[in-house]
Amino acid sequence: LRPKIGGAGEVSYNADSVSDRILIIGGVAAGLSAASAARRASASAQIVVLERGPVSSYGACGLPAFLSGRVRRLDDLVVYTPEFFRERRHIEVLTGHEALEVLGGRRRVRTRSAKGEKLFDYDRLVICTGAVGRAGIAGLETAGVFEANTWTGAQALDAALRGARGRLHAGVIGGGYIGLEVADALLSRGLEVSIFERGPTILNGVDGDISALLEEAVVERGARLFKSTEVREIAADEAGHLRGVETTAGTADLDLVVMCAGLKPDSGLAAAAGAAVGDTGAIAVDDRQQTSLAGIFAAGDCAETRHVVTGKPTWIALGTAANKQGRVAGHNAAGAPATRFIGVLGTLAVRIFGRDAGRTGLSSAEAEAAGYRVAGELVEAATQPGYMGQERVTIKIIYRLDDLRLVGCQLLGREGAVAGRLNVAATAITGGMTLPEIEQLDLAYSPALAPLYEPLLIAAHNALRRR
Amino acid sequence: LRPKIGGAGEVSYNADSVSDRILIIGGVAAGLSAASAARRASASAQIVVLERGPVSSYGACGLPAFLSGRVRRLDDLVVYTPEFFRERRHIEVLTGHEALEVLGGRRRVRTRSAKGEKLFDYDRLVICTGAVGRAGIAGLETAGVFEANTWTGAQALDAALRGARGRLHAGVIGGGYIGLEVADALLSRGLEVSIFERGPTILNGVDGDISALLEEAVVERGARLFKSTEVREIAADEAGHLRGVETTAGTADLDLVVMCAGLKPDSGLAAAAGAAVGDTGAIAVDDRQQTSLAGIFAAGDCAETRHVVTGKPTWIALGTAANKQGRVAGHNAAGAPATRFIGVLGTLAVRIFGRDAGRTGLSSAEAEAAGYRVAGELVEAATQPGYMGQERVTIKIIYRLDDLRLVGCQLLGREGAVAGRLNVAATAITGGMTLPEIEQLDLAYSPALAPLYEPLLIAAHNALRRR
Repeated sequence: LRPKIGGAGEVSYNADSVSDRILIIGGVAAGLSAASAARRASASAQIVVLERGPVSSYGACGLPAFLSGRVRRLDDLVVYTPEFFRERRHIEVLTGHEALEVLGGRRRVRTRSAKGEKLFDYDRLVICTGAVGRAGIAGLETAGVFEANTWTGAQALDAALRGARGRLHAGVIGGGYIGLEVADALLSRGLEVSIFERGPTILNGVDGDISALLEEAVVERGARLFKSTEVREIAADEAGHLRGVETTAGTADLDLVVMCAGLKPDSGLAAAAGAAVGDTGAIAVDDRQQTSLAGIFAAGDCAETRHVVTGKPTWIALGTAANKQGRVAGHNAAGAPATRFIGVLGTLAVRIFGRDAGRTGLSSAEAEAAGYRVAGELVEAATQPGYMGQERVTIKIIYRLDDLRLVGCQLLGREGAVAGRLNVAATAITGGMTLPEIEQLDLAYSPALAPLYEPLLIAAHNALRRR
Repeated sequence: LRPKIGGAGEVSYNADSVSDRILIIGGVAAGLSAASAARRASASAQIVVLERGPVSSYGACGLPAFLSGRVRRLDDLVVYTPEFFRERRHIEVLTGHEALEVLGGRRRVRTRSAKGEKLFDYDRLVICTGAVGRAGIAGLETAGVFEANTWTGAQALDAALRGARGRLHAGVIGGGYIGLEVADALLSRGLEVSIFERGPTILNGVDGDISALLEEAVVERGARLFKSTEVREIAADEAGHLRGVETTAGTADLDLVVMCAGLKPDSGLAAAAGAAVGDTGAIAVDDRQQTSLAGIFAAGDCAETRHVVTGKPTWIALGTAANKQGRVAGHNAAGAPATRFIGVLGTLAVRIFGRDAGRTGLSSAEAEAAGYRVAGELVEAATQPGYMGQERVTIKIIYRLDDLRLVGCQLLGREGAVAGRLNVAATAITGGMTLPEIEQLDLAYSPALAPLYEPLLIAAHNALRRR
């Protein structure tokens, strides 16, 4: 079943014996999900995955845990090796192979590796090129500037921290969940940390009141937080050594800078081949993950997806969605009965600064931008009866005023108090549930582990009483 | 606003100034929820609650935590005092008042208290008489036999344990969640414990495979478990002292016995007044919690309720449902715009023997009894990526084969791993979701707190692949 990779710039597929050649560009989350799904759908297809990086199939979301030391070795993040894919799934994963060009008319991809250029033929192509940093900040190539969300970036940053003397002052650019995770990791390694966030809130556009509560935890833990502050330039001395950053709020002296912002969909390869790109900048796809080009699919951070609430194309770069989209793309690329992707809510949870925080669905601002009239209800509620403890969690629900449907939910609380509750809200939003339905949901109660009324139900109840 | 309670066997309501007299029989979960909801709906109604026990408004579900010592004093379980209700909500709560008869034609209730009999007039009546033990076992009145699910029972049992010498051997009759909680509490107080369960599984009718896993934990913790074993008689010596129990599996010598089974709806008062009683033995109500009698509502463990999956009347005695039904009953009794109760799933979670366990919706057997063709899918899955730990949780989903709707879910895992996941399943069942929808739910992932694919999604995926 294995494709034979030719040495002379051409793949020596034996076209006669091959029913389907499925080529996948990108070997992390979406790409490998696509490859595995394609294999499940077709035992006979030839499946090749091209990964530009040195490693495929690793848990990129675990990189902050590596930086904090919670995960010892970067290799621990590798889920499956290329050997696993070759031997167990008859999928060829080629690392160090960058796709340079899609020759759509000839169903061929031109690639470059350490060994030179090669052409790969395909019958069906799945593009999973991910996202890239395009922050538009001058001086990003300065030594001492790291990116935290790639294998090589995290590796270099960790090496720099190990080799450092004295207490370093790190600047984290971006107050989204990655920036916050990285800041927390650097604090736990003893660094001084300043976070620069362009917008007025942290954590990926949550509402201001939830952001404010989280900001308290960030500051309490000792990080400095600069909101509504744009980093304009990385400053270096004449020898090219990092000095710090120039921001809209002034200059900061720093020993190192970690880029955790400015990610954009890497849709260039697809666009150059003629695939339609949406307003989000990501590759436009239908609910089968098919691009505007016949036989070419896209999945993961490079592609748009449908928002479950608005029904409109959106770009939300998260591993959960990437894996599910990859599965759908791979299935369809293998010609199996069409699987469709229902879309995303942007559900996101994170453990930072001793808390868990998360969001799902639309924020208040996003809901208004989408044309909904909404209201929010914020409740701080107990997670057990009073006689069992005093732990509380903060929940905010965002709901439509016309039909009382839940469209968003945000949570902040102690470790363990957020993910399950967030997932209930995500499920209710997906089901199109209204507050009167949510208020009566039959959720578990037991003094040792859950309150009589879940905070979500209390929020729904309070919102209804307010009317 | 306060009703004046007359001394001469009659309530001296001033009928002229009163728009509504709402009388509530029962002052624990449903009754007090009804009273509070009625007050919210009507500022002017006279609201009186009659509670036969010595205490109202206490967390009955916390009694096992009192028995284990986790909650120090029984009084800690009291949520609100009668003074609170009188002063803050203008609701009169009369403890020690047993309702003897409902004179429906004359809209009057005859009661007995330490001070003798009294009559209470009403315009609207809410019956919340709860459940009573009717196990049909001879000798239950023997000294040394306790009921664990009432204030006075738990108090007596605790006193007996405090006064005891040597290592006692306790028999717990009933392997439902209350029996298991009590058994766990008694083990933690150093007793030897034998659990007698009439049915083939423990924990309120969960499927056999889930029960088997929980049984391992029970036995590991040191309890003896007798399944499919009916207790026929409490055995006493000639002096009337407890000797043990006679069961279908033989005789057991015991120092004390705790009744945690045989609860039935206490529908006698309503039935005697002419209210229709359903096949379940509980009071029949519509979705406004109205009985077959005009002006008389019922809520809580004495009443039937609609099952969200089957749409049929069911009897599931749980505090969550009782509180919600009480709210609906109180609201409607106060003549507010009709609120309707969507029904129950029997969602139930419990922390026992170092684990959390729970169920929602229909078990496989219940689904078949309801006429559905169903299949189950059991998965043991990780609760985080492998590089973050090795914790796993067991989930079983039960789904319809015709339309692939989820109808039930059961979970067993470490502390904290069950409630949130169970609630997601309950929400999905309530929303009528199918496995293809569930497989793609956008749930939170973050290495520190949740796996890439939630166990529920894996179960749905595996079930679909099996087709």
